[in-house]
Amino acid sequence: MNSSFSGAACPLEAGVDEERVSLAHGEGARASRRLLTEFILPRLQGARTSMLPFSPGGTGSAPTLQIRDAAELMTHHPQLAFCTDSHTITPLFFPGGDLGTLSVYGTVNDLAVAGAVPIWLSLSLILEEGLPLSVLGRILDSCASSAAECGVQIVTGDTKVVPRGAVDAIFLNTSGIGEFRSPPLPGPTAIQPGDQILVSGDVGRHGTAVLSERNGLQWSAEFGSDCGSVYPAVQALRRAVPGGIRCMRDATRGGVSAVLHEWAMECEQTLNIRESEVPVCDVVRGACELFGIDPLYLANEGTFLAVVQADVAATALTALRECPQGRNATCIGEVQPRGICPVTVTRGYGKARPLDEPTGAPLPRIC
Amino acid sequence: MNSSFSGAACPLEAGVDEERVSLAHGEGARASRRLLTEFILPRLQGARTSMLPFSPGGTGSAPTLQIRDAAELMTHHPQLAFCTDSHTITPLFFPGGDLGTLSVYGTVNDLAVAGAVPIWLSLSLILEEGLPLSVLGRILDSCASSAAECGVQIVTGDTKVVPRGAVDAIFLNTSGIGEFRSPPLPGPTAIQPGDQILVSGDVGRHGTAVLSERNGLQWSAEFGSDCGSVYPAVQALRRAVPGGIRCMRDATRGGVSAVLHEWAMECEQTLNIRESEVPVCDVVRGACELFGIDPLYLANEGTFLAVVQADVAATALTALRECPQGRNATCIGEVQPRGICPVTVTRGYGKARPLDEPTGAPLPRIC
Repeated sequence: MNSSFSGAACPLEAGVDEERVSLAHGEGARASRRLLTEFILPRLQGARTSMLPFSPGGTGSAPTLQIRDAAELMTHHPQLAFCTDSHTITPLFFPGGDLGTLSVYGTVNDLAVAGAVPIWLSLSLILEEGLPLSVLGRILDSCASSAAECGVQIVTGDTKVVPRGAVDAIFLNTSGIGEFRSPPLPGPTAIQPGDQILVSGDVGRHGTAVLSERNGLQWSAEFGSDCGSVYPAVQALRRAVPGGIRCMRDATRGGVSAVLHEWAMECEQTLNIRESEVPVCDVVRGACELFGIDPLYLANEGTFLAVVQADVAATALTALRECPQGRNATCIGEVQPRGICPVTVTRGYGKARPLDEPTGAPLPRIC
Repeated sequence: MNSSFSGAACPLEAGVDEERVSLAHGEGARASRRLLTEFILPRLQGARTSMLPFSPGGTGSAPTLQIRDAAELMTHHPQLAFCTDSHTITPLFFPGGDLGTLSVYGTVNDLAVAGAVPIWLSLSLILEEGLPLSVLGRILDSCASSAAECGVQIVTGDTKVVPRGAVDAIFLNTSGIGEFRSPPLPGPTAIQPGDQILVSGDVGRHGTAVLSERNGLQWSAEFGSDCGSVYPAVQALRRAVPGGIRCMRDATRGGVSAVLHEWAMECEQTLNIRESEVPVCDVVRGACELFGIDPLYLANEGTFLAVVQADVAATALTALRECPQGRNATCIGEVQPRGICPVTVTRGYGKARPLDEPTGAPLPRIC
């Protein structure tokens, strides 16, 4: 895919390689300004005009993406959510997504599972000298299209260029602000025995997609990362059972296991899941056998866990399954009074056994 | 300086080098959680309890720094400022500051010169495998102390660890939210002929401090970067001449020259400065002669420019000079109707000549 930056407006200067990022692009002077105004902003501003199905609306103003140091925002909701994530994934492009989509969806998802409506994002680029502008362009285009899909606005940003070798190609940071238009969720400390544990879709696809790309494995053309927005499914769930949700969390680094362990620590109950109920697609199952990995530890980028009260679990599942992103949603387990282990898994017809919390590093730079 | 992490609470796991960051610290599981709860959070939470002279107060709630994906904030001001900056400086420690102070002050300053009261920060760490924990500890301590000094709260964060060679030691991103408690400034498009250009202090110290450290030069013990908060001086200026300020900007990458060029582009006037009025300390003057650099192009990290109406310039200067950070404030020039050049400089008794906008890369990784 070629960058559209082959036209008249050249963001570079005499003596600079016209197809690559150079140190001059990070110096705050003319080359920086031209990269920003002629290459970066035109790509990102497109995102602001798109209207897509899952736009959260936004009572906020629509600030213009500016060169200024800070964006001016207007909110009518006094309670806000604020989060940040740096993204260092390798490879930059993988089946189902790339660094740009991951950065936008990741922060949108953090806001969504906190119970907020995602509204504004910042985007900070750290670029390695020599990065092809075509690569930067593809990633920015992905940021713009995924922001448009989510109805969020990229309102402020920053660009740094570091010499060759000081960073591997490109890292992005996205920070996000969301509005709490309904009260925040009670959180994991409210989890009670009897509560049901739901997952919004099949697990392990992001980790498998990245691992496969790194190892040169090709699966069917349809297979890819679950990288995407959980906001529509979260909204559907909240509308269906407004008072019945204890907490939600997207199962990113460390996968389902990491989320369950964090929740178990906070609520001081035991979370038990049934392996047979955890949805896993055939490709992920095959890859896990090949690599000797449990899908419960694999990263996801568009799949979340929720703990709901038992009496609303069926309604919650129905609502989730009506969303395209939630059609594989299932109830994977339930909360029990605290036993010896914080998290247990029942495999096959066996007894519940401890689900270990991984301490190793199965997949660095997964997000 | 040793990290205080030599006590009982060890954030590391068996088989992991206890004095260095390892890949396991970035995996979202137990080692990650222990690094966060036992090493990072204790350092940052200290910042929340400090009360210092220039605390902007904050009508916001005081959210606890959590492991959650997003912080919950409460504001009573509907108009907000939002900004982001990634920091890639090398060396990590330099006379007058380090990566931690730079990251906090940089974002506080972006909010302050936008006319907002800095309130909340996010802090995202990208760590290289093998980074000594003592280095991380010093930088986090600096983040905490400078946040406390500025009265801002670090409310959310993120930690990524990448394999050796994928990043040079440690990069930080800070994003910030501020409240507009008085109307935002008119901005550079409001600049008119006759307006006066003020600088809040002597220029070029940050660039000189970093350049000297890289080259093994030692100046007097008192000399250091201007790295610090401009918020108190900005507040003094706004109180003194509330309706008379057109715009403000901290003169970071690209120095005074870069700010003047951006403003000149936006207002379509000519900005003329008098070289003899630009405050430059002896060390910076000496270093500039040695390296053949003009201090107008050198980065600052605690010095800002302001354009004010002519009739309030004297009052504005007096107010600035009463602040410790503004005692070297001067009026360095004035706005003229647009001539051939966007920015001109009068050197000695000569005629005004164009001040070039630099296109090169005199100092990569300066911030």
